[in-house]
Amino acid sequence: MPVSKTVRDALEGSSMIRRLFEEGAELKKIHSAVFDFSLGNPDLDPPEAFYRTLNELAREKVKGSHGYMSNAGFFETRAALAKKASRDQECEIPASNIIMSAGAAGALNVIFKSILDAGDEVIVPKPYFMEYRSYVSNHGGKIVEVSTKEDFSLDLEKIENAFGGKTKAVLINSPNNPTGSVYPRADMEKLGALLKQRGAKTKNYPYLVADEPYREIVYSGVSVPSVFNAYSEAVVATSFSKSLSLPGERIGYIAVHPGIQNSEETLAALVYATRVLGFVNAPALMQRIVAKLTAERVAVEVYESRRNAFMNVLDSVSMSYARSGGAFYVFAKVPARKDGSSDDREFSACLKKHLILGVPGSGFGAPGWIRFAYCVDENIITGSAPAFRAALAEWTG
Amino acid sequence: MPVSKTVRDALEGSSMIRRLFEEGAELKKIHSAVFDFSLGNPDLDPPEAFYRTLNELAREKVKGSHGYMSNAGFFETRAALAKKASRDQECEIPASNIIMSAGAAGALNVIFKSILDAGDEVIVPKPYFMEYRSYVSNHGGKIVEVSTKEDFSLDLEKIENAFGGKTKAVLINSPNNPTGSVYPRADMEKLGALLKQRGAKTKNYPYLVADEPYREIVYSGVSVPSVFNAYSEAVVATSFSKSLSLPGERIGYIAVHPGIQNSEETLAALVYATRVLGFVNAPALMQRIVAKLTAERVAVEVYESRRNAFMNVLDSVSMSYARSGGAFYVFAKVPARKDGSSDDREFSACLKKHLILGVPGSGFGAPGWIRFAYCVDENIITGSAPAFRAALAEWTG
Repeated sequence: MPVSKTVRDALEGSSMIRRLFEEGAELKKIHSAVFDFSLGNPDLDPPEAFYRTLNELAREKVKGSHGYMSNAGFFETRAALAKKASRDQECEIPASNIIMSAGAAGALNVIFKSILDAGDEVIVPKPYFMEYRSYVSNHGGKIVEVSTKEDFSLDLEKIENAFGGKTKAVLINSPNNPTGSVYPRADMEKLGALLKQRGAKTKNYPYLVADEPYREIVYSGVSVPSVFNAYSEAVVATSFSKSLSLPGERIGYIAVHPGIQNSEETLAALVYATRVLGFVNAPALMQRIVAKLTAERVAVEVYESRRNAFMNVLDSVSMSYARSGGAFYVFAKVPARKDGSSDDREFSACLKKHLILGVPGSGFGAPGWIRFAYCVDENIITGSAPAFRAALAEWTG
Repeated sequence: MPVSKTVRDALEGSSMIRRLFEEGAELKKIHSAVFDFSLGNPDLDPPEAFYRTLNELAREKVKGSHGYMSNAGFFETRAALAKKASRDQECEIPASNIIMSAGAAGALNVIFKSILDAGDEVIVPKPYFMEYRSYVSNHGGKIVEVSTKEDFSLDLEKIENAFGGKTKAVLINSPNNPTGSVYPRADMEKLGALLKQRGAKTKNYPYLVADEPYREIVYSGVSVPSVFNAYSEAVVATSFSKSLSLPGERIGYIAVHPGIQNSEETLAALVYATRVLGFVNAPALMQRIVAKLTAERVAVEVYESRRNAFMNVLDSVSMSYARSGGAFYVFAKVPARKDGSSDDREFSACLKKHLILGVPGSGFGAPGWIRFAYCVDENIITGSAPAFRAALAEWTG
């Protein structure tokens, strides 16, 4: 019996990032120096406090601590994270409004399962992390892409024009993968006002879903404003994958605005979706660990130093790029060839010949751009300059 | 904006087990002795080797050990579990055919996402674990229930009659929740022969999906036969939730028959579904732990002793029940009242008045029956006899 037709189709066009990752692994077997900027796999070690807490909890034998708990998670963990989320979102969030999840990817699937019916639309500013397409289509929904402005900031007019009878939610991601953009407070407020206006007009307030796994990965002078202050029909998905370098442990949470309409039903739906999608609950031991690490994060200054090093490399070869305030990506513009063309897939292939791996912007809905993930040793970044120079010489001819 | 209509409908009729669990928690606040046989939450401690291994790994600092790995899991873990699955299934299974999952619930969602298109049918013998309905409908499929024989063994004629143009899979669960039945080797062989015959006739071999979280929880004289020996288009979902008492950690795996048709595509689909459903991968630390515990299991003899104690209690009040070979459930027949009625919801309510909690069989598609989970202290089981006696006196009048 063949597999699902929709999955078979998806496999054919499957993840460009994953394919690059595999090609990278092949290249590394042959070449000693590969400049692999393809995958956003945080390479910084988790903070010392993580190892300390893991050891402490490993020694404890608490009856039932590896057993089932409420599908929403351990109450102590939800209470601890409610305090953290209250600080982040600048408003009082009760423990009941925190649902533990298997990372942000798990959180988003739970959210979309909870809110979408077949044919419902989710508006997403592009470029965006392409897995969102699956997270929405898994549950019968449809992504409606809207362009951002030239600097990758929100284009509110475009969002307004995308509203329709099937609009169920707007999905944002700040700090952004792939651009590194952080939406400033003023833009968040304007987005909130637009959603309120839409809600008042249609008597149906769209959900605002904010994917925030990079909230803690921001640099000097940049801060990520509250989503909840801007709009109350809001749900935040986040994880400790980046802030504590634990992406393999699949631990994150959903925070629901304390003033959301249908509060009880929304929370019940999220808990239900957590259960029936087979997550059942977020991994127990990691729930107990992150509850104790709400003040910890990885050495973000290392990422900042790498970002600066990467910008230096790109400056040295006269490539232009988006101003990145956070996350660990530089989104660079593909230089025009002599004939004026700037195909990002061809450019990525050209870079690969010089052992540089970057993901074509087409993979994020932004042809003509390329994403470099700089969660690699700084020596690899600085060491890539000659390879960039050679690749560009070949590219521009 | 309201939540999803389908989720809202589901919430209304939501889990009878969960509701009982919550009512039980309320009752326990008031009464010192509640005989709570509602939830299948293993209460035995994980084996000593689990704590030892957890402590060893907690002390190690291996670069990237909490980071992303292949979506299918760490290779070392897959290789170790391939050996275990090879023993269980009595055939040589390569590491590539093991996909790590977030428990069996995660595994089943991944499997159904991988194989189902909208409208596809999955045949399930009843009674069955009602969450299967969600695991199938989440991915557009539809459960087709077939009755079992009076002793809850497979009724092959019923299965054959249920085959249709939309049949994509048959889903079995042995040892069974809620009946405790273990399908004997001869029945598995007949099922395999039936599926082969169907495949040869239609040129489309249905998948056989076996949910096996209770494989290790079987008692004297009972063994669980191989699924893979019976049929090659087979996929097994399992977990360490019961065998190592780790249900909160969400760790399990999918084993794919080494001789399955479309092998490469099936494995790719399962890996893809693991990724896009938001599991991304099974929790990293637990993957490393279970790889070292393939020869370990909880003290099954304790469950056996409790089963015997539970049967004694039911014998003492002349209630009849299914012969249970495994899992930790006794499925008992609701006695007829004077007027001949034997409504399981009413009986469950009557028991509750006497502080006994059991799940009505209707919750598993078996009205007239009631499920008691005996993963509780044996004193609670033996201590429940007077309450059973009083409840039955009231029930039969």
